[in-house]
Amino acid sequence: MKLTMKIFKKAMLPQGFIANGVFCGLKKSGKPDLSLIYSEVSALGAIKFTSNTLPAAPIRVNNLHFKKSKLFRAIIANSGNANAFTGESGLQKAFLMAESAALGLGITKESVLVASTGIISKPLDLEKIESAMPELIRGLSRKGIAKAEQAIMTTDKFPKEITVKFRISGKPVTLCAIAKGAGMISPKMATMLVFVLTDACVGQEVLRRCLDQAVERSFNCITVDGCMSTNDTVILLANQQAGNRKIISGKDLGSFQESLNFACLELAKMMVRDGEGSTKLIQLKVLGAANYTEANKIALSIANSNLFKTAMFASSPNVLGRIVAAVGATGIAVKENALKIKYTSLKKRDVRIEVSLGRGKSDCQIYTSDLSHEYVKINAEYN
Amino acid sequence: MKLTMKIFKKAMLPQGFIANGVFCGLKKSGKPDLSLIYSEVSALGAIKFTSNTLPAAPIRVNNLHFKKSKLFRAIIANSGNANAFTGESGLQKAFLMAESAALGLGITKESVLVASTGIISKPLDLEKIESAMPELIRGLSRKGIAKAEQAIMTTDKFPKEITVKFRISGKPVTLCAIAKGAGMISPKMATMLVFVLTDACVGQEVLRRCLDQAVERSFNCITVDGCMSTNDTVILLANQQAGNRKIISGKDLGSFQESLNFACLELAKMMVRDGEGSTKLIQLKVLGAANYTEANKIALSIANSNLFKTAMFASSPNVLGRIVAAVGATGIAVKENALKIKYTSLKKRDVRIEVSLGRGKSDCQIYTSDLSHEYVKINAEYN
Repeated sequence: MKLTMKIFKKAMLPQGFIANGVFCGLKKSGKPDLSLIYSEVSALGAIKFTSNTLPAAPIRVNNLHFKKSKLFRAIIANSGNANAFTGESGLQKAFLMAESAALGLGITKESVLVASTGIISKPLDLEKIESAMPELIRGLSRKGIAKAEQAIMTTDKFPKEITVKFRISGKPVTLCAIAKGAGMISPKMATMLVFVLTDACVGQEVLRRCLDQAVERSFNCITVDGCMSTNDTVILLANQQAGNRKIISGKDLGSFQESLNFACLELAKMMVRDGEGSTKLIQLKVLGAANYTEANKIALSIANSNLFKTAMFASSPNVLGRIVAAVGATGIAVKENALKIKYTSLKKRDVRIEVSLGRGKSDCQIYTSDLSHEYVKINAEYN
Repeated sequence: MKLTMKIFKKAMLPQGFIANGVFCGLKKSGKPDLSLIYSEVSALGAIKFTSNTLPAAPIRVNNLHFKKSKLFRAIIANSGNANAFTGESGLQKAFLMAESAALGLGITKESVLVASTGIISKPLDLEKIESAMPELIRGLSRKGIAKAEQAIMTTDKFPKEITVKFRISGKPVTLCAIAKGAGMISPKMATMLVFVLTDACVGQEVLRRCLDQAVERSFNCITVDGCMSTNDTVILLANQQAGNRKIISGKDLGSFQESLNFACLELAKMMVRDGEGSTKLIQLKVLGAANYTEANKIALSIANSNLFKTAMFASSPNVLGRIVAAVGATGIAVKENALKIKYTSLKKRDVRIEVSLGRGKSDCQIYTSDLSHEYVKINAEYN
């Protein structure tokens, strides 16, 4: 299927959405740290969470809100504090954070989703959030999405935004996505914050399935450091304002899925490119595996090997031996004379690597980054 | 049982062993790179190999020699080249390396064990080894073990040697162990080269069981970077020269096992302390797990988390949150209010961490290091 998409490398809100971001006092740097996205009408939602068994408080709040209803009006998010491993008091604060936004906006608290990112196990200063709420709400605007994006960034070096415009039944539809995420990036869920907003007219079940597929092919195919966050959340809100024929199947569904897949993959690649200390975007393909599980296990073993990543940082031919060691470390009985490794120039910013196992027909593709001095610096000094 | 051991932090050869190390031209640095250990009489051997499914050529040679006989006379080892992923030609060279030593020493080639460490997938320059063999053999001496140790070092910053002297049935027994290993350190086999020499009189089956236990409690409990080598080998040779009552069971067996355990654990800790770029030796204990597998999985998830390791390098209190994230990332359903984390001063060179899960009575102890700028530097620039 050939889809006509217009792609913009910046966030442009779909109809019916407004947003804002302000500094409320959580970040030491004084940069924006409180973000609000608001839909003028109820939007259907789909959510994917981290599979970390010690999820942060906002994840638990969203889980409850999502069980009550699939209709949402707002996302309130802060950076500078993850509100994770903060016990019952942290959970209470996450509920109150939703309630504070709800009160200001005049909507129900269950229609507000919450997200936090930053330092783990530090008590959240809720007063700062509550004090900044009036200003945050007053400033909501169509152009405010850029500020909202800035306010969810932590160690990110650049904002991650994308907008896709396409048509369904002749009507223009907009899908806009913003993300933060530069460390704790690993598959087995999304491992960052991603908010996808669309004015498409689409049912909840289709929304859920489309998000599943898009996440599987994007955020679940990247790894920076193999570390899984406690706060990973992908939220997709569809406020039905585009006036298109309701997306159910066939070409309509294809167009929507393709746009969503594209936006998510672009954000995923931006995350790897901006991976903490990353100097390279590495596209790693494992071919000729007996099955997908095996291909994935080997791809992750390579992509998460510090020895592989430091060799990539140095553009060193030692990378070959380190790939071999990582393949064999999986315990999968690859034959030495069947193993073929090919790569493009190691000195370029974008490197493609192909590892053929000669065991079957399955393959797997992963995007990853290198491991530099900067990674150590960022993560040692983060506060 | 209370055992009287005399411990020496240097290698002192047991009766009947001589050794030497020379520079043959494999290392760019010009430092010793060819090592020989020789027993004047046949020694019973026990060996543990890497479980990497793409093992280096020497591993495959030793495997064959070990199947033919359990009696050995010599270990020939080189650094600077791992002779791994070098195909049939590499395998042939590993056989010829054993043969070259055998010819010079006037012993059978099957009685020679081979080890290589260094860069993977580079053809081994066998001529350099063969040319240096006469000099290497001529220089064999009781004091040559220090040179033999130097010749197996790669990125090691200090030699790893230990000698334990104890008595069995009134006779003095010596157990001396040397090791190399500063990177690619991970459990699931030994992940380095370790040669343990003893003059104890002990049968092959006891030797094998004792080595299994000692490795399980030492080299299988350490991780520097979670990367598994293609060349890991632990060799234990017992040349029966001490004249003690043959070690079979009871107190004799206890003394031998305890000495071997002690020597292996000391070397293992030295490896972590000398782990590439390591500035800290971290003793990580996971308590209150439902079973050992679970305790081990959580301990390794923490110990191999780059975010944990960089926070340890910085002595940062962020380490708490990063431990939480790593615990939850295992997928094991630890309850937030049951999880207790305690640690000694983070600023010290030796740090103890206890993570209690509140799920059961099993525990696991791992030694690991931090992740510093130096790790990246060493592994980026290694050649």
